[in-house]
Amino acid sequence: MPVRLPPPDRASLLPVAGVSLCAVSAGIRKAGRTDLLLIGLAPGTTVAGVFTQNAFCAAPVQVCRMHLASAQAIRALVINTGCANAGTGRQGLADAHKTCQRVAEAGNFLPSQVLPFSTGVILENLPMDRMELGLREAFSKPDASDWFEAAQTIMTTDTQPKAVSRRVMLAGGAVVITGISKGAGMIRPNMATMLGFMATDAEIGQACLAGLTREAADRSFNAITIDGDTSTNDSYMAMATGQSGVALSSTDASVASDWVRFKQAWFEVSEALAQAIVRDGEGATKFMTIRVSSAATSAEARQVAYAVAHSPLVKTAFFASDPNLGRILAAVGYSGVSCLDAGLVSVRINGTLVAEGGQRAASYTEAQGQAAMAPDEIEVDIDLGRGSTQATVWTCDLSHDYISINADYRS
Amino acid sequence: MPVRLPPPDRASLLPVAGVSLCAVSAGIRKAGRTDLLLIGLAPGTTVAGVFTQNAFCAAPVQVCRMHLASAQAIRALVINTGCANAGTGRQGLADAHKTCQRVAEAGNFLPSQVLPFSTGVILENLPMDRMELGLREAFSKPDASDWFEAAQTIMTTDTQPKAVSRRVMLAGGAVVITGISKGAGMIRPNMATMLGFMATDAEIGQACLAGLTREAADRSFNAITIDGDTSTNDSYMAMATGQSGVALSSTDASVASDWVRFKQAWFEVSEALAQAIVRDGEGATKFMTIRVSSAATSAEARQVAYAVAHSPLVKTAFFASDPNLGRILAAVGYSGVSCLDAGLVSVRINGTLVAEGGQRAASYTEAQGQAAMAPDEIEVDIDLGRGSTQATVWTCDLSHDYISINADYRS
Repeated sequence: MPVRLPPPDRASLLPVAGVSLCAVSAGIRKAGRTDLLLIGLAPGTTVAGVFTQNAFCAAPVQVCRMHLASAQAIRALVINTGCANAGTGRQGLADAHKTCQRVAEAGNFLPSQVLPFSTGVILENLPMDRMELGLREAFSKPDASDWFEAAQTIMTTDTQPKAVSRRVMLAGGAVVITGISKGAGMIRPNMATMLGFMATDAEIGQACLAGLTREAADRSFNAITIDGDTSTNDSYMAMATGQSGVALSSTDASVASDWVRFKQAWFEVSEALAQAIVRDGEGATKFMTIRVSSAATSAEARQVAYAVAHSPLVKTAFFASDPNLGRILAAVGYSGVSCLDAGLVSVRINGTLVAEGGQRAASYTEAQGQAAMAPDEIEVDIDLGRGSTQATVWTCDLSHDYISINADYRS
Repeated sequence: MPVRLPPPDRASLLPVAGVSLCAVSAGIRKAGRTDLLLIGLAPGTTVAGVFTQNAFCAAPVQVCRMHLASAQAIRALVINTGCANAGTGRQGLADAHKTCQRVAEAGNFLPSQVLPFSTGVILENLPMDRMELGLREAFSKPDASDWFEAAQTIMTTDTQPKAVSRRVMLAGGAVVITGISKGAGMIRPNMATMLGFMATDAEIGQACLAGLTREAADRSFNAITIDGDTSTNDSYMAMATGQSGVALSSTDASVASDWVRFKQAWFEVSEALAQAIVRDGEGATKFMTIRVSSAATSAEARQVAYAVAHSPLVKTAFFASDPNLGRILAAVGYSGVSCLDAGLVSVRINGTLVAEGGQRAASYTEAQGQAAMAPDEIEVDIDLGRGSTQATVWTCDLSHDYISINADYRS
């Protein structure tokens, strides 16, 4: 059961003019469910992306980087679940290239105008026969725009699809932002999440879109963690079709206020999609916001936040709703921040002052702690007392179900 | 059930001349079991120690550092379980000092000749009334030398005592090495383990003993991890009473070969005590040796080994005996080693070549993987193909019982 994450309302998911979606069951993940998604993009669409920093990055990630660097206009994205095509060497690269080739042939454009994405088990080759059959079926289907089905198609151990839409009224006209994501495990993105795709019908230049994507990733997909495991396939893609006729730019002063409003809406969608991944994290029963403030640098604020968010002891204490809160101080202490003065650190749980001056707060009672730990959504505020910057990381607890899911993942 | 860790054979634990042990039930942890240990040392004993690097280091750790720095000969160590006296501020320091004071009064030496150790729950004050009653009882008991009972007394969530003894025949005569340790959770020592104590009746000068302690810690207690949580109380102490009359030194050429043999035995005992902590790790069902070779530096070898050892996905795959071995490559990839060439990395599990050239080995079969993952003791060999240094880390799997134990620790 995801933590306070109702399934997306299908009617609320707005089509994005210039984006067509087609989902088929290729039998790669499991029989009887869609597992192959084709995203078609109108000519003139700009595309930007950020990818995993894992040295074992998957073949499709390598091909995406290459194709984005080629400066050809991207016309299609193809995403499969069930096999990550990672740790697959030359064969994996050949398979990813062949996938692009097939899509390009059907769409009558170049292979370098196609971006491939895969998610699933590592160290196994893509079943190309099934991929090709699935693609052939996709080409024969009429264009559609069902973002709900698209979100379902890219799921692996996710328990429900993740999709968010916003219509933004700007001075220049109305634009739409719609995005989908998937996650569940091996989630400690270092550039982007497992998979996140966001599209808008606004017109945004390539450099501007790339900057927006990076900034949005840092505020959303790069601020979540489930288990600290950075995947081999993390990809976060942004697409701007321009079909609304509303042109936006970060450098054009005449649309400055529209840009600010659009950016805000874009960040909201990316944050909601990223948080949805945590809320539906493997075995998650609680959603935690770890906010570290009064840090000397934002790097050290993130370092402390991740140390707390990754501590198995902290995570199991949250699972148990047990205010064994010394574990939070211990994690702050070993986070590696140099010359940290423990005597200046304070900690609040859902507003309750637990520790100050590096020790238990005089006002704190066990009953307060029990009450603060009870909800399924918890804010942990850690004040380091040494500067003025802050960072926020979202994470979930560590439960029996995480073990069950990951012990049985392949079976 | 610890992994291949039979309880120590009481008869095999050799007394160390010059070391007296006294255990009492002070009711700090639980009624009806010993939880307070007093170690008395003969005059002339040298003592050295290494401690946690956690910024929230516990009050007793702070007092130990102070007393060791005072250069007074240490005459007693006092260890309690049930309360870590960490995150307890000035009151915690006062309590640790008072504990030393009481022991010093009874023994007729200075408080600075006493070292205090605590392990247990963080953020709670030492129950000084029970501590003082317990100490009074200890002073009234006759001296004993029961290392088995001492090992039992310092346990927290450990399922069995950890104690190892060796008699070493040297040219200069026979000496004894006996040690005890405790661990179970919050174990990713960064200097030493939760608690480890080793004593010998050899005569070893202070500087020499300090060097030996540091080197032994790096090869044993600093090479284990259970959950990546570096405790606030980690302490590893070495004591040399000199009562055997056998003098050893790292700088005296006339005893060079004795020193080498003694050091070897000392390392064996410290390694066995450290490994015992992992074998009895919270919820452990498997014991893994992660060996990273062909690294450019020993720092990066350790970085990779710890990334693999801490990955919840790798740990649950071992728990399930599931050869989902791409998770190991993913952890190597995100370990943060700069410019790692994934195409040079190979991985073996219990001798079976799983991956080479950054991808699945051509010879590898699922059946081989199943067979390699089945035993309860597994060697993971990772070759980075970029240098000539190596590092070894010992760890255990992540099981349902880890969650249960830590969700319920305080109850």
